[in-house]
Amino acid sequence: MTGEEERLARAALTRIVEPGDETANGWLDRYGAVDTLRALGSDTPLPGVSRNRWAGLRQRARGLDPEADLRTVDGLGGRFVCPGDPEWPSQLDDLGDGRPVGLWVRGRVSLRMWALRSVAVVGARACTDYGAHVASTLGSSLAARGWTVISGAAYGVDGATHNGALAVGGATVGVLACGVDVAYPPGNGPLIRRIGEEGLLVAELPPGAHPTRSRFVLRNRVIAALTRGTVVVEAELRSGSLVTARRALALGRVTMGVPGPVTSGLSAGVHQLLRGEGVVVTDAAEIIELVGSIGELAPEKRGPMLPRDLLAPEAARVLEALPARGALDTEAVARAAALTKDRALARLRELGTLGFLERNGDHWQLVRRRNQHPNR
Amino acid sequence: MTGEEERLARAALTRIVEPGDETANGWLDRYGAVDTLRALGSDTPLPGVSRNRWAGLRQRARGLDPEADLRTVDGLGGRFVCPGDPEWPSQLDDLGDGRPVGLWVRGRVSLRMWALRSVAVVGARACTDYGAHVASTLGSSLAARGWTVISGAAYGVDGATHNGALAVGGATVGVLACGVDVAYPPGNGPLIRRIGEEGLLVAELPPGAHPTRSRFVLRNRVIAALTRGTVVVEAELRSGSLVTARRALALGRVTMGVPGPVTSGLSAGVHQLLRGEGVVVTDAAEIIELVGSIGELAPEKRGPMLPRDLLAPEAARVLEALPARGALDTEAVARAAALTKDRALARLRELGTLGFLERNGDHWQLVRRRNQHPNR
Repeated sequence: MTGEEERLARAALTRIVEPGDETANGWLDRYGAVDTLRALGSDTPLPGVSRNRWAGLRQRARGLDPEADLRTVDGLGGRFVCPGDPEWPSQLDDLGDGRPVGLWVRGRVSLRMWALRSVAVVGARACTDYGAHVASTLGSSLAARGWTVISGAAYGVDGATHNGALAVGGATVGVLACGVDVAYPPGNGPLIRRIGEEGLLVAELPPGAHPTRSRFVLRNRVIAALTRGTVVVEAELRSGSLVTARRALALGRVTMGVPGPVTSGLSAGVHQLLRGEGVVVTDAAEIIELVGSIGELAPEKRGPMLPRDLLAPEAARVLEALPARGALDTEAVARAAALTKDRALARLRELGTLGFLERNGDHWQLVRRRNQHPNR
Repeated sequence: MTGEEERLARAALTRIVEPGDETANGWLDRYGAVDTLRALGSDTPLPGVSRNRWAGLRQRARGLDPEADLRTVDGLGGRFVCPGDPEWPSQLDDLGDGRPVGLWVRGRVSLRMWALRSVAVVGARACTDYGAHVASTLGSSLAARGWTVISGAAYGVDGATHNGALAVGGATVGVLACGVDVAYPPGNGPLIRRIGEEGLLVAELPPGAHPTRSRFVLRNRVIAALTRGTVVVEAELRSGSLVTARRALALGRVTMGVPGPVTSGLSAGVHQLLRGEGVVVTDAAEIIELVGSIGELAPEKRGPMLPRDLLAPEAARVLEALPARGALDTEAVARAAALTKDRALARLRELGTLGFLERNGDHWQLVRRRNQHPNR
């Protein structure tokens, strides 16, 4: 757990340094966030930056109110998650000096738990009907099989993917290149609000921040690192989705592509990927076959193993409520665990994500296996 | 060169043994064709077959007239090519005991020369418009770049491929599962006749023979073995085209697939191949990049190297007719080499296939390179 002063300083730093700033991350490692922030009160630059850039950072550091940001996000049902926090997805540490300073998270469930069994589905904003259909189908079927579907909440493939996951009541995470209270692109406002209510919104940038071109590009590294694999559905040559895919490859994640007609420029980027290290996938089952076996990416190797007795009390209560054989619906679980239906559903989904439960429509039942450790 | 008696016996045997009969091929290796044919006059079976099967073979061996078959095929501008003949494509020897007894060939050019730089394009008979478009485009562009396009003359992908190659005046070979004088499927009669006139028709079966299910399957091994690589354009799961592709893989040839929409059952077989050892290709350039480097499949390692001074006199004359710099059209070459335009064109195509010439529409020019050996 990060101390309160350190947390506040990190929250402040998300207003000062841009995502993926490796120099600033070096300061955090060396001096900690509190001393880094303090140093920004002085004229003498920390190592690795020009006077000019230092002056720019100092300008941003003036008159910050991280407590107000934390209150804003708290009011939206959110929080600020720091490296080392129980909710921190430790696979992000694979980004090294490109690791986020912290993540602004909005939504009711644990990012860490949801990201344990997650897949990214990304692609062209100006996708074809074919691309939208494929993305939505993958979103639905990955989510229906208990996988968290992560994307960038953009128009086109991203939006279709989130919508597909939401349509089956599944787990979906939107990683934004702006604040978690900013609806960008504006036309996806209703979708982004819904993801915030039923899923999770995640951002490196503080509330109110707006996206820029470089923020979009840097956001992609978070999507690649959070997930076990990235699926590209329609991408032109030299598209941003290919950047995410190559980033995923570099991080040792599985990189997959959905083929399309060779006559379509929107599949040309995907086919280029597939002629390299990308793997052809045509449905959710093939994706799960590839990412399901990547035990080495599962964070339990570094963090808690999350066996039954390490579950949070509420989740443990929900798990206790389920019978050894047979299934219960959400309502019945809520009654047995003495929780509201909403809270019970959130815990059931977490337990599903962790591999404890199987979902069948509105019914839930225990997964029987030799080893109760998830992701094995 | 095969002796006349041996050649006649092999021609007769194509009426007796089915394509790919490994037992019969064993007899040919051991006793030669003449003695194998003679043995079929006796009641005592050769090793490896039941009395019953022997009786069946003997029945087929009665009243044969291989000289009549040779005359028939000669009348069609054809011939019977045996292993070891100058026109024999020695890469077929990779089939081992599955090697054809001989090939009935119809057309004006040398099968061996054309097959040196050849690619197979195969796929579904009931293809979609997309599949037909892709096959026809590949046929045209492979042929325009000097590659011989080999397929099975069936409806759908095969036909579209041949038509594409013919449309640009390119080299195309139809490998049939029936006699070279039989138009099967009937609706492809005009196409098959045109291939016979402008390209080559090849069959293991003697004139007049009709296709059967197993003959189609066995024909595929000849397509796979003749070419440096096989491209599958649309194939359902468990389709015959996938058999050809796997055969090509087993023979060490490059196996390629053209992706399509994952929503199309006619691309499902291709995608299955691409999830295994098949390579994604989206155009002719990518195919050539893959097969162009397969020097070890080029038959010159086993046969003549075909440098300039080993060319047949007519081809050498055509080559001499071309200037050191600049291009000539077919008409001008014909005049300079004192040949009819048709014969000059046939020789020009051969020389193009061998890598001596480059074609640009109706113009031909010498390829300049360090080493005049083709396929290196």
